[in-house]
Amino acid sequence: MKKKRFDVIIIGAGAGGVAAAIRASQLKAKVALIERSRLGGFCMNSACIPFTHMMWASHIRGFFVSLGKDMGIGFKADDMEISKLLRRQKDLIGFMQKGVEGILKKNQIDLIKAKASLRSPKEVEVDGSILEAEKLIIATGSRWLDPEFAPIDGKRIITSDHLLTGWKQKGRFLISGDNPFMPEVAQFLAATGSQVYLITSEDRLLKREPKSISSRITKVLKEAGINVYTRSEILSLKDSKNGLKIKINRKGKEESIEIDYLVYMKRKAMLNEIGLERLGLDLDRDYISVNERMETEIHGVYAVGDVSAPQHRHYSHLASSGGIVAAENAMGMKSAIDYRTLPRILYTSPQIACIGLTEKEAKEAGYDVITGTAPLSMNPYGMLLSQDYGLIEIVADKRYGEILGIHMIGEGVCEIAGYGVLAIQLEATLEELSKSILPHPSISESLAEAARACMSKPIYLP
Amino acid sequence: MKKKRFDVIIIGAGAGGVAAAIRASQLKAKVALIERSRLGGFCMNSACIPFTHMMWASHIRGFFVSLGKDMGIGFKADDMEISKLLRRQKDLIGFMQKGVEGILKKNQIDLIKAKASLRSPKEVEVDGSILEAEKLIIATGSRWLDPEFAPIDGKRIITSDHLLTGWKQKGRFLISGDNPFMPEVAQFLAATGSQVYLITSEDRLLKREPKSISSRITKVLKEAGINVYTRSEILSLKDSKNGLKIKINRKGKEESIEIDYLVYMKRKAMLNEIGLERLGLDLDRDYISVNERMETEIHGVYAVGDVSAPQHRHYSHLASSGGIVAAENAMGMKSAIDYRTLPRILYTSPQIACIGLTEKEAKEAGYDVITGTAPLSMNPYGMLLSQDYGLIEIVADKRYGEILGIHMIGEGVCEIAGYGVLAIQLEATLEELSKSILPHPSISESLAEAARACMSKPIYLP
Repeated sequence: MKKKRFDVIIIGAGAGGVAAAIRASQLKAKVALIERSRLGGFCMNSACIPFTHMMWASHIRGFFVSLGKDMGIGFKADDMEISKLLRRQKDLIGFMQKGVEGILKKNQIDLIKAKASLRSPKEVEVDGSILEAEKLIIATGSRWLDPEFAPIDGKRIITSDHLLTGWKQKGRFLISGDNPFMPEVAQFLAATGSQVYLITSEDRLLKREPKSISSRITKVLKEAGINVYTRSEILSLKDSKNGLKIKINRKGKEESIEIDYLVYMKRKAMLNEIGLERLGLDLDRDYISVNERMETEIHGVYAVGDVSAPQHRHYSHLASSGGIVAAENAMGMKSAIDYRTLPRILYTSPQIACIGLTEKEAKEAGYDVITGTAPLSMNPYGMLLSQDYGLIEIVADKRYGEILGIHMIGEGVCEIAGYGVLAIQLEATLEELSKSILPHPSISESLAEAARACMSKPIYLP
Repeated sequence: MKKKRFDVIIIGAGAGGVAAAIRASQLKAKVALIERSRLGGFCMNSACIPFTHMMWASHIRGFFVSLGKDMGIGFKADDMEISKLLRRQKDLIGFMQKGVEGILKKNQIDLIKAKASLRSPKEVEVDGSILEAEKLIIATGSRWLDPEFAPIDGKRIITSDHLLTGWKQKGRFLISGDNPFMPEVAQFLAATGSQVYLITSEDRLLKREPKSISSRITKVLKEAGINVYTRSEILSLKDSKNGLKIKINRKGKEESIEIDYLVYMKRKAMLNEIGLERLGLDLDRDYISVNERMETEIHGVYAVGDVSAPQHRHYSHLASSGGIVAAENAMGMKSAIDYRTLPRILYTSPQIACIGLTEKEAKEAGYDVITGTAPLSMNPYGMLLSQDYGLIEIVADKRYGEILGIHMIGEGVCEIAGYGVLAIQLEATLEELSKSILPHPSISESLAEAARACMSKPIYLP
């Protein structure tokens, strides 16, 4: 078989693989990037990009139209023309893919569009050739899981992917799978006129985030007519004349509902199909274990992105940051990722952004925890934008005032997340945060106020 | 005359005075806060709050309607009902004033609604009584200046204040005065159907900010039909049959235009009317000089907010931060303000946020300057929100990679400003910024990319 030598071989050209490839190439590596399917991966093609786009459309049609009317704008907003929305996002994705292709070319990366099959930690077979390299970066992403009771058929039982390629605009949807992005999908479907059930096995939505955030988004969803069922699971489903009949265990009681579509959203690291078992990796877990250098237990083999993370950490910014770290280590640098600073964001309306530890986690970790909360209903900019449900909460250690977590819900908080990322990354203290000269008026002002509230010296709270 | 003793006397209940009063009270001071006019000052009543509100209304009606249409929302947006907009903002301001009143009460601050007259650094006369205190904080704000050639009459020659209490919805406006907020006013007037001239004596708008920002906002304003005249000044004006006839020197050539209203926006520290001359302060400058502890040359006398700053630093977040610093020092703490971190923001559409030094200023200060730019047209979120003119620029020192300035134009950048504030406040390096795990998709991602671009290792730039 023909052999070809590289310095670094990367499998998967999603957010993680692309970043790794470019960084390795910057560090003078000869790089092979193998992709069997779509450049840009799940995030660009089926998740972050199209869903953020959809969320913006419904945010404009809902929140901004309503706020605009209050401000005296004589709006008439018709129904959404879903085909136009989908066309725009398809164009956007096409444009972004071309962009990625261009950057890979500029960086002289060998993009190989084929299926990879691992031979050993240093050998990958593609298209009848053997590629060899000292370093391997696995970035194969994640895949949808079938529900236990029936497979995804793309007709009645679908994933969020199917919502991107055209669907009956209105219908009865049940969303399940404990994926953190479910509230986005629920909100979009409800905003376009569908009846939505959102069910979770947990005792509240966004179980890992602070209760204050979870109760507020639940309230917003319920007000939009979404049926939120907690501590619930699907027992069985069967085709009925007009759809699917679903039996649910809801807090110990049996209930039966009829829907048109079950949107099942559960993802898992993509561990099969490339021959990972031939590396000798321990694959007992749901994903590939890596250290903070993104290296697996096999020297020289790295894994980044969804393939190295549980579902609740499937964020493309974690993938791309991990990709850069892996590439730098593969090329002899010493680089590490700081998981503490991973922002967990949602483009719901209002947006959600959480960074670092919740109060509960901080207590469990043994900190002497103090918290401070600044509701956006007390923030002038929040009042201006009718942010009645908005909130910024800071979790800190009492002794040194170290910032442990920043959690936010409100208009624009996904952009404010960076402040929280930097605060934790640079180990800022409450005292420092309280002194930040944050712009007035803005939602971000409440960061300093929440820091002051932690220290029992808020200026503007009643 | 009756005498009353306090620990701290504060003159002026705007953003600076209110923050100072609450902070001093938290530190156990007996505080007198004197206000002759409106609680909340210029910012709350006539500037930040109402204009940000107006800018949001026109941003929704302009940007979001247009973006929404591209996304398939069938909008019909009628004209703005200005009376409704003004009513909402009046309600908001009323609500905020009540809030401030409540907080002052909770903090047991003596709010004295009267005119203050200084007797000495430790004595203030109000309503026939003498208030005495060891510490004095002057927070009297700023006032409008008349043009050289004719006084503000509230009819043809107006300030932005007059736009808040009702005006002919459409007309021909000329805006002048070299105030940094002029682009906001120009954009709002143009958005509501007026013909607008914006003239500046400088060779470009926002002279103090990077050229990249200034040229982009100028382009946006021109595309909205606003006539931007640089290196121009008003030579004379006279009433004509249909308005005001104005002679302008435009880049050395004389021009004549006819308008309905001249909006003259030039402000200066409020140095008269309270008897500052009796303190023995040097009042030769346009504002009261203070050190970083907000103390004047007279021990125990502090000045905060617009009264202690030139027009281009009239930001209420500087006033409130300064108020807290002054109160802490007055009460025996050691506190200082960090002017380097003052965010200079504009709620234009797109928004502008600049923090720290521009490239030019950094070079003049002797740094070995490097810069990095990330255009938002290359940022996935920027593409999604059609941010063709958006940009993030970072200015840094080459030797240690110290961040000196962050400058941004684009949707939501006023909220991102906090990242820049914190980066400079905590003396972050380019290397640190480049490693921030910023959320995808978001405008803020471009901060890390701009940092990488500074170091000639951008990942996503072509």
